[in-house]
Amino acid sequence: MPMGDGYVLDGHKWFTSNGSIADFLIVMAVTDPDAHRYQRASMFLVDADADGVEIVRDVATMEHPADSFAKYGNHAEIRYHDVRVPREALLGAEGAGFLIAQQRLYPGRIHHCMRWLGVSRRAFDMLCEYALLREAHGSKLADKQTIQNWIADSVAEIQGCRLMTLHAAGLIDAGDEARVEISALKFSAAKVLHDVIDRAVQTHGALGISGDSPLSQMYLAARFARI
Amino acid sequence: MPMGDGYVLDGHKWFTSNGSIADFLIVMAVTDPDAHRYQRASMFLVDADADGVEIVRDVATMEHPADSFAKYGNHAEIRYHDVRVPREALLGAEGAGFLIAQQRLYPGRIHHCMRWLGVSRRAFDMLCEYALLREAHGSKLADKQTIQNWIADSVAEIQGCRLMTLHAAGLIDAGDEARVEISALKFSAAKVLHDVIDRAVQTHGALGISGDSPLSQMYLAARFARI
Amino acid sequence: MPMGDGYVLDGHKWFTSNGSIADFLIVMAVTDPDAHRYQRASMFLVDADADGVEIVRDVATMEHPADSFAKYGNHAEIRYHDVRVPREALLGAEGAGFLIAQQRLYPGRIHHCMRWLGVSRRAFDMLCEYALLREAHGSKLADKQTIQNWIADSVAEIQGCRLMTLHAAGLIDAGDEARVEISALKFSAAKVLHDVIDRAVQTHGALGISGDSPLSQMYLAARFARI
Amino acid sequence: MPMGDGYVLDGHKWFTSNGSIADFLIVMAVTDPDAHRYQRASMFLVDADADGVEIVRDVATMEHPADSFAKYGNHAEIRYHDVRVPREALLGAEGAGFLIAQQRLYPGRIHHCMRWLGVSRRAFDMLCEYALLREAHGSKLADKQTIQNWIADSVAEIQGCRLMTLHAAGLIDAGDEARVEISALKFSAAKVLHDVIDRAVQTHGALGISGDSPLSQMYLAARFARI
Repeated sequence: MPMGDGYVLDGHKWFTSNGSIADFLIVMAVTDPDAHRYQRASMFLVDADADGVEIVRDVATMEHPADSFAKYGNHAEIRYHDVRVPREALLGAEGAGFLIAQQRLYPGRIHHCMRWLGVSRRAFDMLCEYALLREAHGSKLADKQTIQNWIADSVAEIQGCRLMTLHAAGLIDAGDEARVEISALKFSAAKVLHDVIDRAVQTHGALGISGDSPLSQMYLAARFARI
Repeated sequence: MPMGDGYVLDGHKWFTSNGSIADFLIVMAVTDPDAHRYQRASMFLVDADADGVEIVRDVATMEHPADSFAKYGNHAEIRYHDVRVPREALLGAEGAGFLIAQQRLYPGRIHHCMRWLGVSRRAFDMLCEYALLREAHGSKLADKQTIQNWIADSVAEIQGCRLMTLHAAGLIDAGDEARVEISALKFSAAKVLHDVIDRAVQTHGALGISGDSPLSQMYLAARFARI
Repeated sequence: MPMGDGYVLDGHKWFTSNGSIADFLIVMAVTDPDAHRYQRASMFLVDADADGVEIVRDVATMEHPADSFAKYGNHAEIRYHDVRVPREALLGAEGAGFLIAQQRLYPGRIHHCMRWLGVSRRAFDMLCEYALLREAHGSKLADKQTIQNWIADSVAEIQGCRLMTLHAAGLIDAGDEARVEISALKFSAAKVLHDVIDRAVQTHGALGISGDSPLSQMYLAARFARI
Repeated sequence: MPMGDGYVLDGHKWFTSNGSIADFLIVMAVTDPDAHRYQRASMFLVDADADGVEIVRDVATMEHPADSFAKYGNHAEIRYHDVRVPREALLGAEGAGFLIAQQRLYPGRIHHCMRWLGVSRRAFDMLCEYALLREAHGSKLADKQTIQNWIADSVAEIQGCRLMTLHAAGLIDAGDEARVEISALKFSAAKVLHDVIDRAVQTHGALGISGDSPLSQMYLAARFARI
């Protein structure tokens, strides 16, 4: 809320990434509730130790359980109690919060897909290597038709996503926003990520869900990707 | 079987496309049972009215039911009883049957995918048009989330296949056989073809399975594509 | 529309089962457009040769293509032009059309599921028999893991549907309408029907989509079931 | 290996449930490598502090990450170095190891399914409650068709599994081993467990993958169930 020469921020936020170890926080707050929905919010830079900022706790997730925050980073629950910030704390113009977020999120989406493709590919390689190594019921896993079907499906799905990513990136380079292409890519790539990792986990059996293999951590991250 | 200056062909073949209306038949027959499996068979040109060629019947299929042969063409069951052909009836070298078939089938596979993409795209367009036209339970089909999910899935799947087709075609143009790429593409494209048509049929309801819409014939052809 | 001592029926209907060979037609028509939506319509018995009844044509469907009407029955398109029927033509009370339809459709739904289970079971038996008979690439189809997976999935799905059918039928016998149970059963059974037949078709290859096997006709009927 | 009046056990085992906090261990070891595969192994009771028993470590899993052993139990990696046990350490007859394991595992499988059904049901209840509570884009989640589809699918799948469990349990009570029924039930129930929880997680969004909801722990356990 605008007040005097600055703003007063009030609110309650879950899942602020790295919020509990940050020096400053980026806060998106409604500055004009009556404006068009795309112009209602603004972004602010807030010192993490400003008066009224309460880091309530780190929220545990599947991927980052409560005991692992030191290792992996965290998602903070934060309350803002009448936090006063000066006019200069504004990021961009007042009311530009939504726009700034979209500008960052759109390219961000394709970057997610690129990383997911890398993880999918690594899970696929692990699937193939283990299938050639491991025997069950008298033959290698790689000789079982179920595993062969999984490999064929994974090859096709990863290839489709890879080409969609390159195509969308090409459009962006050419000055297009590629909104439809990136939207189609995003949910496809998140599904491929999950499916390929899931097959790799199943191929590895108990090893696949153990902390001895990176697949278990990949599987948790893949669930997050589909949200 | 080689005999004297020519060959004697014996056998029984189902699903010879257009066999009952053809002037000549292309027969693939084992000429050397002891050769490597890729060099066992040869191809022959055989006159459809040669002695010993018996066109048993046209085999009805889902796509081309018995009563529609005149309209759509057919798949013949043919018996070959001691059919004598001269040496010149050989297509290519003796033992080259498998090789010739592969040379034709590999590019043939990508042509199938290209046509399937066109059909998938037409079914998708029909889905979208009908969803904008038709109301049910007080709103347009296009406003139902189920239909919107189908549209999003179809866009992503068609796009993935389209790019895989262009990519494989580019490899072929560059002199590569693109075997892995075409294999991955073929079963993906056949699945997309079925899934998109199936959603379009469901969107159209009873109209979609009636002869009043091309979708019903597309659906049958799509089942054939997945064999 | 009520008129004098009777009613005048006007309308256009597609997919009247066996309409073109029937002696009388059952017509559902709005008799009070301002009533509650469940009391708007009434049912009438109408002579097929009454003045104003025009049997436009038989509508071809996937399952019953245009050339097969004599064999399989048909779905007629019918126009009603100012067809006058006496008060006695009413089936039940005025405004009871929806109720009568529901009374017939609810038990009808479970009968559909019972027949579908029988068809699913037959397709499953054909799958198993053919898998034991047919060899490909040096071993029986029954020895391929893909086929074994299909058999296991089919067993579980048919068993689940069979028990859901018995359970719902038991509730009905005990006086319950079992609406939730029958709704859940209906879409599950239609999906199982399609999936089991689809696997049986795939196992049979080209034979499965030919008129030489009942599977092709089952496949078409299964698409109809999912509408 | 039999030796003198007793046996000497040698080996390396991963995933011994609760192995690191147990007072005794049950060891399955080959006692006659030349016997029929079902009579090769025997079971032994071994003191956890016997000479030669080395508890190497607890193996972390998705469900029980390294830092949570105190809370959740664990899966130990254990080495057996020339562990000598007397004849009385045998559980049952020599060579009966496989038989004993099967006798325990068969009923064990249906107990798993019973617990999974309970968990599936709880996840389903959470899905429904949250869908009624939470609004997005101007309406309740419960009003979105995607969520309604998930609810319908979940109802049907849970119902099918519940009836299959009751049916198999009835067969067991009647003296049957119900092997086919339990096998079909096991993989079906594990899939339903995963699918229902996955839908509940998705409905809850970020809350669903956070430690604030039991769904995240359910999701991990469900992956374990499908191994």
